[in-house]
Amino acid sequence: MLDSINTRKIEKVIFYQREFIGDTIINEFPFTISLNGRELVTLLCTPMNLEYLALGFLQSEGFISDRSAIQNIEFNKESGYINIQIVNGETIMEQKMIGKRTLTSGCGKGTTFHDVINTLESQPINTELFISMRKIYDLVDEMQKRSLLFKQTGAAHISTLASNQEILFVHEDIGRHNALDKLFGECLLKQINYTDKVIVTSGRISSEMLIKCALRRIPILISRSAATDLAIELALKSGITLIGFVRNERMNIYANGWRVLSDLP
Amino acid sequence: MLDSINTRKIEKVIFYQREFIGDTIINEFPFTISLNGRELVTLLCTPMNLEYLALGFLQSEGFISDRSAIQNIEFNKESGYINIQIVNGETIMEQKMIGKRTLTSGCGKGTTFHDVINTLESQPINTELFISMRKIYDLVDEMQKRSLLFKQTGAAHISTLASNQEILFVHEDIGRHNALDKLFGECLLKQINYTDKVIVTSGRISSEMLIKCALRRIPILISRSAATDLAIELALKSGITLIGFVRNERMNIYANGWRVLSDLP
Repeated sequence: MLDSINTRKIEKVIFYQREFIGDTIINEFPFTISLNGRELVTLLCTPMNLEYLALGFLQSEGFISDRSAIQNIEFNKESGYINIQIVNGETIMEQKMIGKRTLTSGCGKGTTFHDVINTLESQPINTELFISMRKIYDLVDEMQKRSLLFKQTGAAHISTLASNQEILFVHEDIGRHNALDKLFGECLLKQINYTDKVIVTSGRISSEMLIKCALRRIPILISRSAATDLAIELALKSGITLIGFVRNERMNIYANGWRVLSDLP
Repeated sequence: MLDSINTRKIEKVIFYQREFIGDTIINEFPFTISLNGRELVTLLCTPMNLEYLALGFLQSEGFISDRSAIQNIEFNKESGYINIQIVNGETIMEQKMIGKRTLTSGCGKGTTFHDVINTLESQPINTELFISMRKIYDLVDEMQKRSLLFKQTGAAHISTLASNQEILFVHEDIGRHNALDKLFGECLLKQINYTDKVIVTSGRISSEMLIKCALRRIPILISRSAATDLAIELALKSGITLIGFVRNERMNIYANGWRVLSDLP
């Protein structure tokens, strides 16, 4: 089992001066997830909170919806292997394998794209959760402060679950999808309700990131980075409040701004 | 067929002032690649140079090695669908499907990870291509200048093929893997030799990015961003000169620094 970071001797160049120094580098670890004994996928990820990652991944991919589906977890940290035994695993896997795979743009993993869009449109999220502009700025600032792996390596993404007041859970990973799935895995295992919560993340919001939140009926999604046009379209259709580019007391509200309160200080 | 960008009415917030404005947003387009009539994958990507993307993807995934393998290309821009007919397509597909899938960390797509590592170690790249520090800084500066989609949207990656003197080909995409595959697709179609060239890219270097370059025997890989520990390990094993964090006349040489010339000005 690797740590999240490693120290390596590298050559640092400043202008034209080269010098060997020890540098902190992010690890990338192959982690294999099996479902009912059948190998499903190997994710390349940061080796922290791998159980959460596996559970969040299985939930994102539609294999499980909540903790009650899990019968047994067999986790070998050293070898980077987890086997999760779930109710009706074989049947669900057969159904999934028939579906079409969508591979990714920015970053990410497979999802049966068009079915999802239909689902989102037919049952839009109308949760009356409100958040003030001040809190949006504060949550992103707080997230930045807690980006420890990023500070050390310059190569990690962070995702957090927050109320409309404060950050509750934090996960970092080399992959922005992994960071989000770790968060959802923790919520699943701890049975945290997220339908009245906010996701705050460092990474760009692609359609897949949006879909992950929309399927879980999370009403507000905030990013420090940009959103794609397709993600905005899906946010509009699914009723999600989508906010991006939150930096230096500025932000872009891409969709459903009615949840954002204009609290003049 | 979409454009690469779209103009959307969004709510821009500066401090506590909100205003509806037109903003330039990057598009994300589902593009389906079929091989010999069999649907292989749907990539979410920026809809420019999609033929290059398909060819580069097929090469990266080991379905084709060069242009001679291509028998026919049937491309429908409007629907985002391409079918590529290749020599021995069915046989190659059967072999591939048996292999294990690795899904991604940062960003990316499947690859049979461990086989690749063995290949890289057994035939390291020893090409005597040299590059000066000045040129490394210049190439990254030039790449930044040519990041048109990034400048417009703040949400694109860029990959370029360069000699050790100047940038030759440039591709942008919402996904860093897609940008790289577009570059390789163009080289494949135009029969450009890249074994004496340099890749310069904006995105982080994960193991998968490194492997894409190593399998094509590209001797020098330069990024504006960080590299993972696994990517550095693979660069050392495969003989690639790996350079990261090229910013403000500084850089990190992670592996095989012997190709970098210390040219004091």
